[in-house]
Amino acid sequence: MKMSQAQSAMRPKAKWVYSFGAGRADGSAELADLLGGKGAYLAEMSRLGLPVPPGFTISAEVCTAYYDAGRKLPDALRPMVADAVSRIGQAAGARFGDVDNPLLVSVRSGSRASMPGMMDTVLNLGLNDQTVEGLARRASDRRFAYDTYRRFIQMYGDVVIGLGHDLFEEALDNYKHLKGFELDSELSEEHLVEIVARFKTLVADELGQPFPQDLQLQLWGAIAAVFGSWENARAKAYRRLHDIPDDWGTAVTIQAMVFGNRGERSATGVAFTRNPATGEKTLYGEFLVNAQGEDVVAGLRTPQSLTEAARQASGDSRPSLETLMPDVFADLTASAAKLESHFRDIQDIEFTVEEGKLWMLQSRSGKRSMQAALRIAVDMAEDGLISREDAVASIDAAQLDQLLHPMLDPDAERTVIGQGLPASPGAASGELVFDADEAVHLKAHGHTLILARVETSPEDVQGMHAAAGILTTRGGMTSHAAVVARGMGRPCVTGAASVQIDLDKETLQAGGVLLHKGDIVTIDGSSGQIINGRVAMREPELSSDFNTLMGWADKIRRMRVRANADTPADARQARAFGAEGIGLCRTEHMFFNEERILAMRQMILAEDEEGRRRALAKLLPMQRQDFVELFKIMAGLPVTIRLLDPPLHEFLPHGEEAIVEVAAAMGVSVNRLKRRVGGLREFNPMLGHRGSRLLVSFPEIAEMQARAIFEAAIEAGRSLGVQVVAEVMVPLVTAKAELDFIKQRIDAVARAVEKEQGVELSYSVGTMVELPRACLNAGEIGQSAAFFSFGTNDLTQTTFGLSRDDAGRFLGEYTDKGIIQHDPFVTLDSAVGELMQIAVERGRKARPDLKIGICGEHGGDPETIRFCEEIGLDYVSCSPYRAPIARLAAAQAVLGRKLSTR
Amino acid sequence: MKMSQAQSAMRPKAKWVYSFGAGRADGSAELADLLGGKGAYLAEMSRLGLPVPPGFTISAEVCTAYYDAGRKLPDALRPMVADAVSRIGQAAGARFGDVDNPLLVSVRSGSRASMPGMMDTVLNLGLNDQTVEGLARRASDRRFAYDTYRRFIQMYGDVVIGLGHDLFEEALDNYKHLKGFELDSELSEEHLVEIVARFKTLVADELGQPFPQDLQLQLWGAIAAVFGSWENARAKAYRRLHDIPDDWGTAVTIQAMVFGNRGERSATGVAFTRNPATGEKTLYGEFLVNAQGEDVVAGLRTPQSLTEAARQASGDSRPSLETLMPDVFADLTASAAKLESHFRDIQDIEFTVEEGKLWMLQSRSGKRSMQAALRIAVDMAEDGLISREDAVASIDAAQLDQLLHPMLDPDAERTVIGQGLPASPGAASGELVFDADEAVHLKAHGHTLILARVETSPEDVQGMHAAAGILTTRGGMTSHAAVVARGMGRPCVTGAASVQIDLDKETLQAGGVLLHKGDIVTIDGSSGQIINGRVAMREPELSSDFNTLMGWADKIRRMRVRANADTPADARQARAFGAEGIGLCRTEHMFFNEERILAMRQMILAEDEEGRRRALAKLLPMQRQDFVELFKIMAGLPVTIRLLDPPLHEFLPHGEEAIVEVAAAMGVSVNRLKRRVGGLREFNPMLGHRGSRLLVSFPEIAEMQARAIFEAAIEAGRSLGVQVVAEVMVPLVTAKAELDFIKQRIDAVARAVEKEQGVELSYSVGTMVELPRACLNAGEIGQSAAFFSFGTNDLTQTTFGLSRDDAGRFLGEYTDKGIIQHDPFVTLDSAVGELMQIAVERGRKARPDLKIGICGEHGGDPETIRFCEEIGLDYVSCSPYRAPIARLAAAQAVLGRKLSTR
Repeated sequence: MKMSQAQSAMRPKAKWVYSFGAGRADGSAELADLLGGKGAYLAEMSRLGLPVPPGFTISAEVCTAYYDAGRKLPDALRPMVADAVSRIGQAAGARFGDVDNPLLVSVRSGSRASMPGMMDTVLNLGLNDQTVEGLARRASDRRFAYDTYRRFIQMYGDVVIGLGHDLFEEALDNYKHLKGFELDSELSEEHLVEIVARFKTLVADELGQPFPQDLQLQLWGAIAAVFGSWENARAKAYRRLHDIPDDWGTAVTIQAMVFGNRGERSATGVAFTRNPATGEKTLYGEFLVNAQGEDVVAGLRTPQSLTEAARQASGDSRPSLETLMPDVFADLTASAAKLESHFRDIQDIEFTVEEGKLWMLQSRSGKRSMQAALRIAVDMAEDGLISREDAVASIDAAQLDQLLHPMLDPDAERTVIGQGLPASPGAASGELVFDADEAVHLKAHGHTLILARVETSPEDVQGMHAAAGILTTRGGMTSHAAVVARGMGRPCVTGAASVQIDLDKETLQAGGVLLHKGDIVTIDGSSGQIINGRVAMREPELSSDFNTLMGWADKIRRMRVRANADTPADARQARAFGAEGIGLCRTEHMFFNEERILAMRQMILAEDEEGRRRALAKLLPMQRQDFVELFKIMAGLPVTIRLLDPPLHEFLPHGEEAIVEVAAAMGVSVNRLKRRVGGLREFNPMLGHRGSRLLVSFPEIAEMQARAIFEAAIEAGRSLGVQVVAEVMVPLVTAKAELDFIKQRIDAVARAVEKEQGVELSYSVGTMVELPRACLNAGEIGQSAAFFSFGTNDLTQTTFGLSRDDAGRFLGEYTDKGIIQHDPFVTLDSAVGELMQIAVERGRKARPDLKIGICGEHGGDPETIRFCEEIGLDYVSCSPYRAPIARLAAAQAVLGRKLSTR
Repeated sequence: MKMSQAQSAMRPKAKWVYSFGAGRADGSAELADLLGGKGAYLAEMSRLGLPVPPGFTISAEVCTAYYDAGRKLPDALRPMVADAVSRIGQAAGARFGDVDNPLLVSVRSGSRASMPGMMDTVLNLGLNDQTVEGLARRASDRRFAYDTYRRFIQMYGDVVIGLGHDLFEEALDNYKHLKGFELDSELSEEHLVEIVARFKTLVADELGQPFPQDLQLQLWGAIAAVFGSWENARAKAYRRLHDIPDDWGTAVTIQAMVFGNRGERSATGVAFTRNPATGEKTLYGEFLVNAQGEDVVAGLRTPQSLTEAARQASGDSRPSLETLMPDVFADLTASAAKLESHFRDIQDIEFTVEEGKLWMLQSRSGKRSMQAALRIAVDMAEDGLISREDAVASIDAAQLDQLLHPMLDPDAERTVIGQGLPASPGAASGELVFDADEAVHLKAHGHTLILARVETSPEDVQGMHAAAGILTTRGGMTSHAAVVARGMGRPCVTGAASVQIDLDKETLQAGGVLLHKGDIVTIDGSSGQIINGRVAMREPELSSDFNTLMGWADKIRRMRVRANADTPADARQARAFGAEGIGLCRTEHMFFNEERILAMRQMILAEDEEGRRRALAKLLPMQRQDFVELFKIMAGLPVTIRLLDPPLHEFLPHGEEAIVEVAAAMGVSVNRLKRRVGGLREFNPMLGHRGSRLLVSFPEIAEMQARAIFEAAIEAGRSLGVQVVAEVMVPLVTAKAELDFIKQRIDAVARAVEKEQGVELSYSVGTMVELPRACLNAGEIGQSAAFFSFGTNDLTQTTFGLSRDDAGRFLGEYTDKGIIQHDPFVTLDSAVGELMQIAVERGRKARPDLKIGICGEHGGDPETIRFCEEIGLDYVSCSPYRAPIARLAAAQAVLGRKLSTR
């Protein structure tokens, strides 16, 4: 001890090496940043007195130092490692390099975030031509010793020397072929001695010098290789994909080897403290007798069940661990229980049994299905192991999506013919159809359809609604098809670039298969797969655990959750999923059905206001009926209705043929229709004559819609016996004067309707805040608006100068090249967030009681919801299918806030 | 005096009435905000001892009070006005309402901004059936008295009672017709008495009560009417047009009447202290003997010259004022000199001579031509009347534009057949051509052309350059046509909606005229007129005064002025107009000529990077030669070259026919070309795959351009013997990583070129800041960029969510309806300005020496230049033709800053 203190005085300030084992540890689970998940858990397990092979972890700080010094390990590390290795030896009763009783160690990576299989590992280190004989003597098993040496040379040659795995595999295969063998187990002790010799020759030939016999050289080579693997291509790609910062670095854990392949009293296995598929509270897992961990992974032998119950359930005739090694099983059960109650989470454990003794090799939080996650959280909270807040916090809100859509049966066979983007979750099978109108027609005749288009536009919305699923070959995760499909809860695959659609011939070509209209195809909106033929489906079931947990979440959250809903079906779904109002009802979708589009087109073709008013008068009763239904379904919950937003040309036909057809149907000349279509054409429709600009040009549209809303509110209110609260939303505003101009018209209609019907209306007029100028002018706009609703789709488009529909072409490249981290249409960009924050501050300064929400696609994104909580929004609105996610994320945002303000 | 002090103690705090006359005045020229321009100048003239008829001004604050009280004058005003009226009487030697010696007054409006003819005036007030006889006796002229009464009833009946002017004119015409008269002068005293009687009957019939005989009632009615006229439709429209705030209000000036129509010793006239057309330092003006001011305006009699010199020059046989009334002329000359040296500006004077006595009725700054303005400013500064700073400040920078383009001879006849927007100043006549390529072809054969298009696109740029003028029927002041034309200095009329262009038939129909290709047409880009046939032109001449004044401005300004220039011609023009570098060289315009577009298209159609590099290699020498020329012309001044910005589809043909043609020329299949055209099509090209996004996808383009720039810099530098400074600008950046990705490539090319040529390059890499996200991320972007250049066109488009090319359809409506004050593409919007300010602050925080400029269209707008000075930009860059405006405006911005920080 004295010696060690004296040494530590000579060391640099930083502690770089953390030993563990034999019931003690320098580190703990708190130090995952330094020791990596694996090292920290091993330390913690050791502290808990669990049987952990002794070892030590080199801190991730050394990784940083290694790269800072140009891939050189600091000299100061050497004595620390030497010291720690000798302590392992003491604990394990062996000595590193001892020719009689050699200590063998593993050298593994481990970062603070799990990066499974991405970095390198060296096992069985500590062998050379002398110590292998010592090992053979100690184990009384020379075949075992040489097989271990063979494995070591192979792994070291690959990982440290860099000769590649295949070189050795090939040599081994050649040897077996020469001998007429198939399996490794056919190799005898002599064969393995010969293979070791061949492997060493191989290394010497490639390297120009012999395989290193110096064990220190081996050890330091392995340490450097593991640190070096932090920067391998695989690891870098993984980090980018999972948002893991490059500067975290990896720790290196060196640990005494234990062997599960030392005979029939040895074994290796994995165990979950609960069933990770169902959440059931029972030890779950499997093991192999006389095997090493890699054998479980390799899958050549079928593992056996841990428990008797599981064995019986599976009908396996081989004994369970419970029966075969009752003492080991008892130890394992106790250890598992101890780990779970300590970490207060389901644990995923790796263990090895060496000659009857249980060793715990690793423990970590267990990955589980969403269904299991819910059950485990609820069970643990009800058992008092965790609080309800912890239970709510433990669920990954984004993953909740899995539960809310039908999905492909994972066990069913499938012929994947193409791959696109997983644009809207869930799966669907149906007949291929290439035309939206035809989809509507066929649906009415009872067909189930997959609508395949190059891309979709608002004209296709009715057809998309009629389809069970949507497939496009262009567009990204936030293309029109993706957004509308998510809103409708339709599975959707977009941007399937390898799929060729010929709209004229009505064929789809993919993966060498040519499909025609009417052929059955399946799409999986959760994976992006396009599958030939039908695949069996599994319906989602919302468990009582789901309801319990959502109830807890609802009690915690501050923000309200609304849904974006345009149709009665949407509205019903929204209520079923717990939405507390409609945050965005897009009225334009209401104008696309056959009867209405005619009146709409008559309005657009009208020569003057008079003509427009005539056409609008036809739309009024239909529009009113739309709103009556929505108001009734929402039963007094607030409903925000956005006035007409898209440019008028979206309602006109495009393409020669369609124009001729529509002109005939409308009784106008083709030329006149063409002129109007041409006159309305825009270079950049997204930045064109739409939203409030349209309503300023044609205030009669706003007047008709306002009248429909107010009359519907009265009618629904009378029928419900409650006051209906209508929130009229003016889109795409940039200034107070713009809003005022339209608000005056709305207010005048309200006065008129009140007078006509002798009632007092309860309504408010607010605006979408979806342009940078609106954010910056929020102070003045807030003087006129009763509410703001952030339209983050358009706000993102304009802040970035990025068209959602065109971004698909290069956004992928941007993430690949590391220029942006996230698709800004999925996760809110910080610049967009800053503009929102400015708008909230300025708007609330003008009107302290300004109601503020978000209704863009981001409203269902947990990250964004957290940000909305931070900047004090009153509600989020998302697609009905994401409402549960929003409810949970809103609660988690409150918990996160609490944490940060503690 | 004591009495008046006692009274003032009883008055409200505010002083509402300001008397003047007889060498004294309560007010002064400083109080124009309260007294209006007219009242303030009258007060000042009175203080100067000039012969001003006595009077008083009611402050514009009363106008505000009048409207605040619901169009009611405050009671407290009455005693003040009574007191002031009696003081006029004392000064004038008459008394208001005195039947023997009645005082007559005028009641006029006058706001702090000149609003000529927009508001109402009542003259000759103070007459009723009694006082008219007193006036007759005093003047010994009953006809004069009744003519004056007649005029009063007519004016009062119109302005105060609201019966309209026509009613009285008609009655007068009927009477003359009845009597067989033609002219008013044929009416005798008796006739006028009868007319007065008829007028009174007319009023009584219409009003239901007699014409008011109560002079107090008349006076207060007139005061209220003049205040009331601030809100008439005419005045409101004028204010909107001239950005005059509604809350300024008007003052009311009441002044003793003097009569220029009291015989041959009386006269009325106007005088300028200098020639307002040329600036020559000589009294300039005209007068009428025995006439009232309105007679000069009416134009029924031809006025005579003031000076002998002018009389001789015009060959008029009638005497000048100098000869006819030498004493009056001497007084006028002295008064004019006094006024000019007092106000230190050219004065526009109205005077009346009543029976040999000169009265000064009004003086104000004289409107002058730009040519005169320059001469006057330089003369006055050289005479020491004003400082050079004042001279620079006195010129309206925006108006300077008039001088810099050829213009239509204002005296030439013209047949206007249509009207569009004055998109780019100057005028041009030429043969109509409808196709850009044909324009290039015809120009080469010596034709002068007007290119007429529905709209233009980058494909048309060569043709636009070949044309003498451009006409489009769509697009606004900042459409592609307008922007490119201004950049080239080509006259341009856009958005001529009443003009029908048939591109197939190659005809243009407007104003009932059908023109064919080759017909001569003239466009006036300064007025927006489209004229049938040729109109005589006047070439601009830049006077020595211009050069003197610009030299002074250059000494004052802090910001540098650069020009946006893409071609050698542009660059030469830029230097001729004093630009100190190129702030924006758009390289895409270089790719549209016949030879290059082929290579460009080959690049776009290439299957892989290899193919693209082959095509780019063909472009390299041409591009290098472009830059060599530019660098040579700019001779060491900084040149900022923007890398390729537009989306690739702009370089491909559109339309069946063009595609077939190009496919043949390129030797590729029509289908392949169509596929590529279709594949590149974008919904919103403005927000699409362009700028840095393109360069990230195809870094080989940036590499070729960087190589061309660096090789050219070396070549030009060697030939010039100076170090050429190249600034490489990356467009459409939103984040540091984006810039870094491209900057790495540019830097690598620089290292390679340096190595190849054995020289050291002087260059920097910066970025356009043209998206809200770039402004907000300026802190991080500034770490990598050596300079920022604000692209305010795109920044305005994205901040507003407004497509420049599509906004024409509704932006006019927005200004008409008062929703926006200015076209944000002409005058910088405040929200855009706020984003710029954020970018400047964050950018400079990251890099204190960050060079920042502006290169959008706004760079030549004086308002914007003032803002750029305020936020500390280093330079502005504008089209070459606006460089003088920018130089002047930049100097004025410094002077404005000095003023505000005093």
